[in-house]
Amino acid sequence: MGSHSDPGLPIGVFDSGVGGLTVLSALQRALPKEDFLYFGDTARVPYGSKPLEMVRRFAWEISGYLIHQGVKAIVVACNTASSAALPELSGSLSVPVFNVLEPAVAEAKAVGGQVGLIGTEGTIKSGSYQKQFDEEIWSKACALFVPIVEEGLWADAVAKRVADYYLHDAPKDLGTLILGCTHYPFLKPVIGEVLPGVRLIDSAEATAKVVKAGIKKNPAGAGSVKHFVTGDLEAYTVLARRLGVEVQQAERVPLDEL
Amino acid sequence: MGSHSDPGLPIGVFDSGVGGLTVLSALQRALPKEDFLYFGDTARVPYGSKPLEMVRRFAWEISGYLIHQGVKAIVVACNTASSAALPELSGSLSVPVFNVLEPAVAEAKAVGGQVGLIGTEGTIKSGSYQKQFDEEIWSKACALFVPIVEEGLWADAVAKRVADYYLHDAPKDLGTLILGCTHYPFLKPVIGEVLPGVRLIDSAEATAKVVKAGIKKNPAGAGSVKHFVTGDLEAYTVLARRLGVEVQQAERVPLDEL
Repeated sequence: MGSHSDPGLPIGVFDSGVGGLTVLSALQRALPKEDFLYFGDTARVPYGSKPLEMVRRFAWEISGYLIHQGVKAIVVACNTASSAALPELSGSLSVPVFNVLEPAVAEAKAVGGQVGLIGTEGTIKSGSYQKQFDEEIWSKACALFVPIVEEGLWADAVAKRVADYYLHDAPKDLGTLILGCTHYPFLKPVIGEVLPGVRLIDSAEATAKVVKAGIKKNPAGAGSVKHFVTGDLEAYTVLARRLGVEVQQAERVPLDEL
Repeated sequence: MGSHSDPGLPIGVFDSGVGGLTVLSALQRALPKEDFLYFGDTARVPYGSKPLEMVRRFAWEISGYLIHQGVKAIVVACNTASSAALPELSGSLSVPVFNVLEPAVAEAKAVGGQVGLIGTEGTIKSGSYQKQFDEEIWSKACALFVPIVEEGLWADAVAKRVADYYLHDAPKDLGTLILGCTHYPFLKPVIGEVLPGVRLIDSAEATAKVVKAGIKKNPAGAGSVKHFVTGDLEAYTVLARRLGVEVQQAERVPLDEL
C-alpha cells in the first residue's frame, strides 16, 4: 500500500498487444488529466489461443512489473487476461484492479433484451462472460476480426463479408451485442450494418466509466502516456499509428526482465 | 554424430504451429516409409511478428529437443525460423538440416521469368528470400492469409476478396510466385484465380523433393507421426483436422521443459 495510494501516480493499463489501445483512448477521453503506463505484451500476443494458466502467469508478471514502475491502479485491458486472472488479481494486489469484462456485462444487463457476445476463441471458450448471466446467451468466436483490424481493413469490403459470415446466424430477437474483444470497436460500423437495431456494447467505453468512478483523481497530471512493449518497438509504433495512436514515449522490455 | 546417423530414426519437422503440416504431408507423400516427429510451437505462435533473435532462440531450443528425442534429420518447416536461424543451425548440428526457403528459391530460378514472393510480415521484412536473387523481386506481406486458412475459409468468398486485395498490384509480367509461407498451399486455387497463368511455387512440395534426395532412407519405417506441441493439445488436434491432418499420437511439451 503506502506510496501506491498516491493519486499523482499513473494508471497502468495492459493488454496482450495493441487491442487495449482502444481502452487507453477511452480512458484518456474520460480522464484527460491522468498519466498512463501502457504495457503491450507484443512478443507473446495473441493470448486468445494460449492455455489459460499460461495467460494467468503473464498477467501476474505484467502486474508485478507495473507495480514496480509505480502505478495507483491497474486496468486489465484484455478480455482473455481478464478471463484468466481476474478474481485472483483483484483480491491479491495492493492497488485497485479494473477489467473490461464486468463493465460490459453490467451495461448489457442494464440495456436488457436478448444478449449476444462476440470475442476471440479463448474468451468465448473460457465462458467467463457467459457465466455472468442467468440465462444462456448467444455467442460466437470471430477469429478473423483481430487480424482484419490490425491490417487496417475495418472499413473495407473484406470486413463486411467477414462480419456477414460470423453474424448471419445471430438470433433474430438479439437486442444487445457485447463486443468482447478490445479490437472490435473499430468494427462497429460494419457490425451495425449486419445487425441493424442491435445495441453494441463497447467494453472500452464501459470500462472507462467504471475506472473514472473508482480511482483517486490526479489533481495535476499531464495526460502523458508511456508505452512498454515486449516485442519489436518499430512494429508496435507502426501498428499503433494504424489504429490512430501516436506513440511518443516507448520502451522495449525484454521478456527476461519481467 | 554416432547414433544420429541411424537411418531407422525418425525425421524431425518443426514449425511455429500448424502451417508446417503442409510440409509434413508433402514429406509423407514423398517418403511413405519414413517416421516423423512433428513439433508445433503453438504456445508461441506466430513467429512472423516476433523479433528475429527471439525466433532464432526458439529454433535452437526446438532443434535441441528433437535431437534429444532422436532424429536423423531436421526440417525447419517454417519460413520465419528458416530466415532467422538457417545458416547457423545448418552449420552447427550433427544431423542434416533442411529448410523451406532454399528449395522454393531454386525452383523459382529454374522456372525463370519475373519472380514474386508472398509471405508473413516477418518473412518479407527479413529479406531472406529477396537476397537469394540477383534482381529485385516483387514481394508482399499478406497478414490475413494465415488466419483465413486456420479458420477453414480458404475456399470462401472471403479468401477471394482478400487475395484480390493483396495481389491486385502484382506486376503484369509476373511469371512465378513463391508461396513463402507454409499455410499458403491451401490458397492455391484462389491465388490462381487472381493471377491466372502465374506459376505458383509451393515450398512444401519443393522441400519434400530436396529432403527425399538428401537423407538416408529408412528401410523399414512404419510411416508413423508423433506430434509435440507447446500449447493446448485439443485445440491443436481440432485445428490440424480442419487442415486435413488426423493427429493420432500427440504429447504436450511445457515450455519450461524445452
